[in-house]
Amino acid sequence: MSRQAGRGTESKKMYWYLPFISPSASMHLMNSELFTLTYGALVTQLCKDYENDEDVNKQLDKMGYNIGVRLIEDFLARSNVGRCHDFRETADVIAKIAFKMYLGITPSITNWSPGGDEFSLILENNPLVDFVELPDNHSTLIYSNLLCGVLRGALEMVQMAVDVKFVQDTLKGDSVTEIRMKFIRRIEDNLPAGEE
Amino acid sequence: MSRQAGRGTESKKMYWYLPFISPSASMHLMNSELFTLTYGALVTQLCKDYENDEDVNKQLDKMGYNIGVRLIEDFLARSNVGRCHDFRETADVIAKIAFKMYLGITPSITNWSPGGDEFSLILENNPLVDFVELPDNHSTLIYSNLLCGVLRGALEMVQMAVDVKFVQDTLKGDSVTEIRMKFIRRIEDNLPAGEE
Repeated sequence: MSRQAGRGTESKKMYWYLPFISPSASMHLMNSELFTLTYGALVTQLCKDYENDEDVNKQLDKMGYNIGVRLIEDFLARSNVGRCHDFRETADVIAKIAFKMYLGITPSITNWSPGGDEFSLILENNPLVDFVELPDNHSTLIYSNLLCGVLRGALEMVQMAVDVKFVQDTLKGDSVTEIRMKFIRRIEDNLPAGEE
Repeated sequence: MSRQAGRGTESKKMYWYLPFISPSASMHLMNSELFTLTYGALVTQLCKDYENDEDVNKQLDKMGYNIGVRLIEDFLARSNVGRCHDFRETADVIAKIAFKMYLGITPSITNWSPGGDEFSLILENNPLVDFVELPDNHSTLIYSNLLCGVLRGALEMVQMAVDVKFVQDTLKGDSVTEIRMKFIRRIEDNLPAGEE
């Protein structure tokens, strides 16, 4: 991964609600329960605001995207991870460093496609859904969809367009939670001149 | 503090969106940045949903209350804290154990009232507001008001009615963030017969 620098004052004002995180900010290690419950409050609010699950799912993905676009800067600063040479390396960084850092879990990486452009993250414990039960009238809600948006947004900032979606979910009765990630293309446009 | 047990299936269904946390659930330690950004998304959504800051502040407090009512169970299970004998002890538990556990910070306790029924928590670093800037049209927004609700809800479950509010906020230009807590009364009604 390479770091995409340069966000101006302009965007800071546009997204006042998405805090900037300084690499020099002190690190706060916290238990995940307050986050889990706050996330539950967010999903609930969206369920009130939007008429159907489909729209809630889209909104969660969009919010996640905006978060990912910000979080990547913090991640690169803290992790000192350099440019990934292939998608396998990216998978390792996501599972072993990023998930551990921001959610306190390490998903396993499985189900690689023969071409090496798709893999799955298996979450045995998804902290977001600890003891959540989806009611019958929200059977198509993708409760943790924010995570897909975060991954998509963060990777876009390091020039990778990816498709991210839940294909299994313990909330839906599956035995594990599985996030499927598919590499789409390298985004070359944003690279500064002179960089390959 | 004493533990208030017994929530039935009824309430579980009522508040499906507020996950139950089992004391046996594995603990996930996470960096606070994803929480910070997710909280920002929640506040933003509320600013879209409600016409004025006053209503957003109320909603944040209400959400926090519902979270606190749940979080206390997790807290008592993890912390092994027993009944507090006075408000000073409660202040210590909140600042040194609860804030550290769920936000990764330890506020200082100051400004005790002569009667010992009021104190302030001083947060030098409030992880919720890292690099947030309130725009001019949200000058009366109490951005972190969720925390007041959490404290109020959690303490109510251990038979303490308290008033909690922000009296200083770095977001408003103050040099520190100060949460004022005032003991109102002991809630005796909920005590099981035989317990004092």
